[in-house]
Amino acid sequence: MTSTQTIRAAVLGASGYTGADLIRLAARHPNIEITALIAKAHAGQPLAKVYPHFASLDLPALVTSDEVDWNEVDVAFCGLPHGTAHSEIAKLPENVKVVDMSADFRLRDLGTYAQWYGGEHGAPELADGAVYGLTEHYRDAIADARLVACPGCYPTAVLLALLPLAKTGLIATDGIIIDAKSGVSGAGRSLKQNILFSEAGEGLSPYGVGTHRHVPEIEQELGAAAGTSVTVNFTPHLVPMTRGELCTCYVQLGTGKTADDARQGLEDAYAGSPFVRVVEEGVIPATQHVRGSNYCHIGVFADRIPGRAIVISTIDNLVKGSAGQALQNFNVMYGLDETTALEQLPLFP
Amino acid sequence: MTSTQTIRAAVLGASGYTGADLIRLAARHPNIEITALIAKAHAGQPLAKVYPHFASLDLPALVTSDEVDWNEVDVAFCGLPHGTAHSEIAKLPENVKVVDMSADFRLRDLGTYAQWYGGEHGAPELADGAVYGLTEHYRDAIADARLVACPGCYPTAVLLALLPLAKTGLIATDGIIIDAKSGVSGAGRSLKQNILFSEAGEGLSPYGVGTHRHVPEIEQELGAAAGTSVTVNFTPHLVPMTRGELCTCYVQLGTGKTADDARQGLEDAYAGSPFVRVVEEGVIPATQHVRGSNYCHIGVFADRIPGRAIVISTIDNLVKGSAGQALQNFNVMYGLDETTALEQLPLFP
Amino acid sequence: MTSTQTIRAAVLGASGYTGADLIRLAARHPNIEITALIAKAHAGQPLAKVYPHFASLDLPALVTSDEVDWNEVDVAFCGLPHGTAHSEIAKLPENVKVVDMSADFRLRDLGTYAQWYGGEHGAPELADGAVYGLTEHYRDAIADARLVACPGCYPTAVLLALLPLAKTGLIATDGIIIDAKSGVSGAGRSLKQNILFSEAGEGLSPYGVGTHRHVPEIEQELGAAAGTSVTVNFTPHLVPMTRGELCTCYVQLGTGKTADDARQGLEDAYAGSPFVRVVEEGVIPATQHVRGSNYCHIGVFADRIPGRAIVISTIDNLVKGSAGQALQNFNVMYGLDETTALEQLPLFP
Amino acid sequence: MTSTQTIRAAVLGASGYTGADLIRLAARHPNIEITALIAKAHAGQPLAKVYPHFASLDLPALVTSDEVDWNEVDVAFCGLPHGTAHSEIAKLPENVKVVDMSADFRLRDLGTYAQWYGGEHGAPELADGAVYGLTEHYRDAIADARLVACPGCYPTAVLLALLPLAKTGLIATDGIIIDAKSGVSGAGRSLKQNILFSEAGEGLSPYGVGTHRHVPEIEQELGAAAGTSVTVNFTPHLVPMTRGELCTCYVQLGTGKTADDARQGLEDAYAGSPFVRVVEEGVIPATQHVRGSNYCHIGVFADRIPGRAIVISTIDNLVKGSAGQALQNFNVMYGLDETTALEQLPLFP
Repeated sequence: MTSTQTIRAAVLGASGYTGADLIRLAARHPNIEITALIAKAHAGQPLAKVYPHFASLDLPALVTSDEVDWNEVDVAFCGLPHGTAHSEIAKLPENVKVVDMSADFRLRDLGTYAQWYGGEHGAPELADGAVYGLTEHYRDAIADARLVACPGCYPTAVLLALLPLAKTGLIATDGIIIDAKSGVSGAGRSLKQNILFSEAGEGLSPYGVGTHRHVPEIEQELGAAAGTSVTVNFTPHLVPMTRGELCTCYVQLGTGKTADDARQGLEDAYAGSPFVRVVEEGVIPATQHVRGSNYCHIGVFADRIPGRAIVISTIDNLVKGSAGQALQNFNVMYGLDETTALEQLPLFP
Repeated sequence: MTSTQTIRAAVLGASGYTGADLIRLAARHPNIEITALIAKAHAGQPLAKVYPHFASLDLPALVTSDEVDWNEVDVAFCGLPHGTAHSEIAKLPENVKVVDMSADFRLRDLGTYAQWYGGEHGAPELADGAVYGLTEHYRDAIADARLVACPGCYPTAVLLALLPLAKTGLIATDGIIIDAKSGVSGAGRSLKQNILFSEAGEGLSPYGVGTHRHVPEIEQELGAAAGTSVTVNFTPHLVPMTRGELCTCYVQLGTGKTADDARQGLEDAYAGSPFVRVVEEGVIPATQHVRGSNYCHIGVFADRIPGRAIVISTIDNLVKGSAGQALQNFNVMYGLDETTALEQLPLFP
Repeated sequence: MTSTQTIRAAVLGASGYTGADLIRLAARHPNIEITALIAKAHAGQPLAKVYPHFASLDLPALVTSDEVDWNEVDVAFCGLPHGTAHSEIAKLPENVKVVDMSADFRLRDLGTYAQWYGGEHGAPELADGAVYGLTEHYRDAIADARLVACPGCYPTAVLLALLPLAKTGLIATDGIIIDAKSGVSGAGRSLKQNILFSEAGEGLSPYGVGTHRHVPEIEQELGAAAGTSVTVNFTPHLVPMTRGELCTCYVQLGTGKTADDARQGLEDAYAGSPFVRVVEEGVIPATQHVRGSNYCHIGVFADRIPGRAIVISTIDNLVKGSAGQALQNFNVMYGLDETTALEQLPLFP
Repeated sequence: MTSTQTIRAAVLGASGYTGADLIRLAARHPNIEITALIAKAHAGQPLAKVYPHFASLDLPALVTSDEVDWNEVDVAFCGLPHGTAHSEIAKLPENVKVVDMSADFRLRDLGTYAQWYGGEHGAPELADGAVYGLTEHYRDAIADARLVACPGCYPTAVLLALLPLAKTGLIATDGIIIDAKSGVSGAGRSLKQNILFSEAGEGLSPYGVGTHRHVPEIEQELGAAAGTSVTVNFTPHLVPMTRGELCTCYVQLGTGKTADDARQGLEDAYAGSPFVRVVEEGVIPATQHVRGSNYCHIGVFADRIPGRAIVISTIDNLVKGSAGQALQNFNVMYGLDETTALEQLPLFP
């Protein structure tokens, strides 16, 4: 495959934030032609009506899925809400590859899915073949997949930080405590009182203490890495910023291991991964350093409690935590350079 | 003592944020007459020059400490930076009571002080008699003290949450992990790059990982409560808001104890304390709920990891975390109702 | 009337922001007993359920208006949406005084009301006797009124700045341009996309250009002051802050008049008004200087264009712009000191 | 010239915000090789030390100007403060082209420069040949220039909106009132109290009323367009956001002209300009719609006062208002496609 090919892409859920950020990036991808934008509630409207910042783009108007000629589509990016995505994806013809940003195909155990997402899975046969799209850890499987299930934003940040450590015994997998913080865009564009500016601004609020749906994803992957069942503490907090996510992970080091060992382990794991950077000793990751980009920064710190370490990981929740990683997976699926259309540097200040 | 007495107060460090917030509250205290405002670098200026929001107050101009007739002062509130406060306070005549908001008299072990604050203590004889001003836990000693050392903002939030639990064995004191978040005003009004709007806005950044100066205070008090040496993990984060502080504490419950037991233990401990509220099961504390007020809200949650709990505590860092608690201590010292001039409800939205 | 009287108050629309801010202030008013909180959609719930920051208050649960024994109520504060308030207020018995924070009784010409608010007025007989509650300009009428219609937030800021100047010919009333900026809380607690944190944050957006409903109020009052019909330009902007409002008014000075004359005119007009402060030459008003308080700061500046001036006025939209002014009017209505329960200083930082 | 050429670029003032944003964009420009980064106060440090978000870039360390071999440099981008830039630029050899983002070469009348910038100009001979870098209006001159003086952020927004209207008589040039609003990054990275997060956050403050240094630039260009001396009112406001600028311009329409005429005039003027978009009737420009991009959105609205109009213009102050326009000018100077490396879409949300 050459880099001059043109791949025809549709976006399901084009009116949501993840859909919009996918469009933002895909519109500048040299190999992508956006041929369909699907947003049921806004069908018939130009994209610029729901997103005025896209006024400069010459894209097709929003339509319903039924209006799309799917034979003219090579790949569908899906930004639909969980619980909705699986049935919409199930309707697509076999020839359409799918990069799903929803939660519907992330969990391998559909019983766990039903338990956390409040209902039976509607497309178990598809779930079976889905590949978990944590690019840096599943590149080969992603390259061959028809359906890639991109990880949640929190699992992306957490697993990039902990997976290599769990795999190699550099940390213990029991007693992991993850204090997570996210910008408000993670809650999407739907109208909820707690994400009004006057409610979320000038304040910090924990939410979903012990009950956040990203827990089973994290436990699934850490468990697979460690070869044992894992239970984590995961406590998310809503931060008065739009973009950005930072997870502070409190872990027990493997016997005889140090924070330096852990840092080195991460550096080794990500030597060939352009978007994951293990920061130097003494540098502290911050969401500002990755804002608007596909980068993930990870730092490792010795804890004051002997034998423990703090691993801090940060991403832009809408880019590496969603649309950026989706495009990265797309690049892998089509044999393109993994960084294509994702080279934007962080927007700071 | 009657509530009609007038107590003449001076404020040292009137141009800093803690000094200013003390003035804001004290100016409306029915028993306080502010007779001197000390701010060396701004001496000679009216207060409204450095704080235009005080334009409506009729207060004395800023002066140096030397210009004050200390015989006409009953109590000094000190909002000077740590390392500066001890020598300024040492100069005050014996008849002046002191409510110190700096860190200089918080640590009982002056070796620990020297180690964390980078130099010998300048007034060890005063340090000896200082009372740690965590009002709810040291009321009797505060009532009799000449010098009260108000806790740091983080220790206030953490200790109100954990001290009663540590005292009664409801939690273990080893392995305590405190993930702390603060608004930017905690860094004061001095000019530092990381607290510029363009740097701190739209972002979240951990800082002082493992090295924050509030650690020894927390360990001193938890250790005293538990009757043993305690080492905690304490990781603060800078949040893009001006006021507010929230500490998420991850703890091991005492043998056989539950999160409900811990909540009940806190309720019992604070039954007579008007400013500390243990929130009902299911309610999650948020900084918005205490903004601009002297309240502390505490919530207890069972962890997903059996035998563990999450205790969340939130305050306004400048009020309960500094100036409000100082005034509360003042009220106790002078036999006034503890809530005098502190009744403002949280400012929400 | 003595200051020890107790006045029984009901709050209509207790679940909205203006209702909540009224409760915040009234709960600390020494002469007010809150006896009924009306919020139809939340009837049966405790207030702390909709506003957790009120957890410390011991107030009656939310009810519907029908559940209230109105004979036990002396005064009703109304924070209902415009178009809803007039019919609810019309139902109240004659003995209940009303302080209305909605727009329903502000316009003297009900034809103008119908035109701007999209429908006939439901209680024209009440409208007739309503007094426009711009405290500083209508004190006498307010003192005698049964129904006081508090001005909108923008008109409050604009009219405090311009009314004395228009009355005395210090400015011309044609060609007035008002560039207005407001925090997001002005839009209330209802769920609208443009006030989500992720939409309104990190951005500035004009809205209602030429069509904002506060225009007729401003023109009504300026016209009455000048004795002629007045047409103003009024362009509001949404600012990424929760509280605060600032109006930059571009005006033609009266023949031979200077900016200094205008400043002096304002100082004279507000000499006996504790909440309106004309700032000294060289000081620039800012919303931060009045945040959370009932103060209004006004500054006058000579324009670069000869014969013109810039008058800048700032208030907290929820306090002086709504609930604070309502309480100030209440104080006037009951012969209490105008500043009762409104003495809080601005919350800065 | 072909698009495969490599142009060696130096950045003067690499540690400021405009320098940094220039680096962000230039690092992804296919024809630019960054060969020198000059930042006197940080010489010897890697760029990632002053800007951790650049950790992924492989760029030369910061140096002083003296350390640069200027014979190996084709073009210098200058992000130095005004008053410093002219002397540094004067030292550069003739062969180096210069794109200056400072204010030093914007004013054609050096007397005006001395008056507004507080001192004699240090390089009058260079000033003579400098071209004002408002790309859309000076393309031909820019293409031939050695030294391009990029406009200030405010003048960029204002002049893009008003220049075509002034030139064609669609508006009168007397009585123009410009109410301008900017994010805090416009104040740069230097340490000033008013741009601390706790000061600028949750608030709006006018500044430099009648005295802002961007006034003479605006008057120079409007005057040249109209062929007469022009005096404008220009009142800037500091908005609690990092990026973004919006100017609300209140103007008198030309005799017999309408707002629609003005909109059409702007559309005609910018038909061939990819970065300037005149928004449709009914759409209101907002800074969010251009954030992080090189776009300028302009909207025209009829005023309530007959014969007047409101023209609203918005840009990202650091991109189109500085570094982006600098790069756009560079593209013009080197015969490259004007949009090269500037295609990023706005970052929303």
